[in-house]
Amino acid sequence: MFTAIPKGFRLAVASAGFKTPGRKDLALAVSDSSASAAGVFTTNLFKAAPVLVGQDIVKRKQSARAVLINTGQANACTGSQGLANCKRAAALTALAAGLEAHDILPASTGVIGAQFSMSLWEKAVPALAANLGTATLEDFASAIMTTDSFPKYAGERLDFNGKSVLLAGVAKGAGMICPNMATMLSMLLCDAFVAPEDWQAMFRRAVDKTFNRATVDGDTSTNDTLYGLANGASGVTVTGRDLEVLEAALTRVLADLAYKLVRDGEGATKVMHIAVTGAPSDKDAEIAARTVGHSPLVKTAMYGKDANWGRIVCALGRSGVHFNPEEVRVALCGVELFKNGQPTDLDFDALLKEPLEQRDLPLDISLGTGPGAYSLLASDLTHEYVSINADYRS
Amino acid sequence: MFTAIPKGFRLAVASAGFKTPGRKDLALAVSDSSASAAGVFTTNLFKAAPVLVGQDIVKRKQSARAVLINTGQANACTGSQGLANCKRAAALTALAAGLEAHDILPASTGVIGAQFSMSLWEKAVPALAANLGTATLEDFASAIMTTDSFPKYAGERLDFNGKSVLLAGVAKGAGMICPNMATMLSMLLCDAFVAPEDWQAMFRRAVDKTFNRATVDGDTSTNDTLYGLANGASGVTVTGRDLEVLEAALTRVLADLAYKLVRDGEGATKVMHIAVTGAPSDKDAEIAARTVGHSPLVKTAMYGKDANWGRIVCALGRSGVHFNPEEVRVALCGVELFKNGQPTDLDFDALLKEPLEQRDLPLDISLGTGPGAYSLLASDLTHEYVSINADYRS
Repeated sequence: MFTAIPKGFRLAVASAGFKTPGRKDLALAVSDSSASAAGVFTTNLFKAAPVLVGQDIVKRKQSARAVLINTGQANACTGSQGLANCKRAAALTALAAGLEAHDILPASTGVIGAQFSMSLWEKAVPALAANLGTATLEDFASAIMTTDSFPKYAGERLDFNGKSVLLAGVAKGAGMICPNMATMLSMLLCDAFVAPEDWQAMFRRAVDKTFNRATVDGDTSTNDTLYGLANGASGVTVTGRDLEVLEAALTRVLADLAYKLVRDGEGATKVMHIAVTGAPSDKDAEIAARTVGHSPLVKTAMYGKDANWGRIVCALGRSGVHFNPEEVRVALCGVELFKNGQPTDLDFDALLKEPLEQRDLPLDISLGTGPGAYSLLASDLTHEYVSINADYRS
Repeated sequence: MFTAIPKGFRLAVASAGFKTPGRKDLALAVSDSSASAAGVFTTNLFKAAPVLVGQDIVKRKQSARAVLINTGQANACTGSQGLANCKRAAALTALAAGLEAHDILPASTGVIGAQFSMSLWEKAVPALAANLGTATLEDFASAIMTTDSFPKYAGERLDFNGKSVLLAGVAKGAGMICPNMATMLSMLLCDAFVAPEDWQAMFRRAVDKTFNRATVDGDTSTNDTLYGLANGASGVTVTGRDLEVLEAALTRVLADLAYKLVRDGEGATKVMHIAVTGAPSDKDAEIAARTVGHSPLVKTAMYGKDANWGRIVCALGRSGVHFNPEEVRVALCGVELFKNGQPTDLDFDALLKEPLEQRDLPLDISLGTGPGAYSLLASDLTHEYVSINADYRS
């Protein structure tokens, strides 16, 4: 497992007791110098206070020094008081860590609608600042967990003309989902210098190919946030063709984190790797993939290890995408289940008994001869998912 | 409970043994004379053989004598052989019951992709025809059940200038859903004469206000079918302003059946009565209502008796509908949970403890001051739903 922290960054975690006394619920990453900042935020119309603050910093300054994440309190749907509390938490942290408040990118996850307990922040922030440099990537990833069952981090070491560049990321959130506590948060650190506009553009493209193609239950949180900081501490400035190399690495790291999010989807036992091809357009392929990936009937069938092609074609047929049913082909784990408008003659249950025991299930769907394609990672729907979400607040 | 069969109709049920030996799995309704026929069918691109046959009869002839429904075999995704089998089943029934095959509207539900066992049809059809006139509305409704936990039927007696008109309907399907066996099927019988174009038009409008506003899991089957027969046996011809009276009754009967479908949604313990108002348009209101009604997080919260307004506003915020978050108001069971972008000061958990124990949960959402409105019935998402659908084929 990749564990190196990019140069010029220090990490810290601390316990504020926002929800569960004693557990680490605060995480801070600080760059020794100003870093190019990228941010990708929830598209939900209800945006949490830290999303509004972070969006403003990224847009206005395009640079930052730190990322501050708390769990236990989402600071969403908290009005002007929530906004003031978010800024005050950043100011307290800035004071303790020798930063400017407007250089701190905030992110929160936890119960929606409750105001921050500012006294807990006041008590915890000095310890957090004092801990800078003591936390590992895994410590940071663990501190931002909520319903996650394991810490998620990934990274790569790149070589640019003999000089080493590190890229490391953490993520949390048992899916791209929106229960009170399962916001998706992620942070990427890089010790190369990348111009803000290049850094931001590669983030948008990489996110579109990775996090945006992963789904647990189709919900999108009020707090979803991804931050990227590139500080140049490695002495390498990435420009020109090298940007493509860095972007490819960034895409791999985000894909790794996105896969881990789906694998750790609430109650999930399976990861469907849905690949739709032959659609009239990429957008149509995406709609078809999402309709299948969100269908409760397909998701429960995968949980039940059931080669239920009927539910898959049924979802395709109601997706709204135009295709000729006679041209559709569906293969699960490499076994062709459906073509020419009918199931194939293969003995699915026998052929798929073993493959359906595995965690990763490739589901290949061709809708015809069109140029459109899309891929999506989706979890299954299980008893445990219902338990987690029905019993959550009690 | 309304149990009268409209005049001039005879009902029969029989056991063919398509899936479970001994249980009633065939149902036939015959009108003594030709009746105006209406049909509303699945929008799924994969249409089962009986859907194709029934659509053709309704479109071409606009009249029919009978409705023939089987459970256990869906005859969907069965190609040209399936179409031939569907027609042959109708021909066998026509022969036994003294009808013409093209006067029989077929509907099937059961496992997708398997071909009919024609020998079972041949053996069962004579008994089915011999039983005509012996089955009650409840017998019919029971014979077409699959994962349903209770038979669903409803009706009304109307008076037109001192003459009585009966309207009776049955329905099956644990929701508007598409597992292998939970197709939505419904049949309405009326002993007034109504011109085919009037009868069909009132069906389309009534279905749009009832069945189309009920959801269990958002899936749409390959076999969904609603048939209506109006035979004139009461001696009443409904025209002019009386059409509105009949349409209102038809809408009430379909609403009754639609409510029963959601109440009996697979594993369901709750019926959410979602009413969205103040949206930019009716279509926007519908999108918002469906996003909330399909959200696994909202559905599991209702199952968990949790006044989780955060998940409701989160679903609204990601619905794609444009509104001002500050203007949104959400009330559950009459208790206002959210307004001005924040939760209200009420003690929800105390106020809603009792109401959330009930089966029916009114959820009123105002998005602003626009003219758009929509209502939707939606079930919750439970452990039992996952059990039914994960274990279904085994």
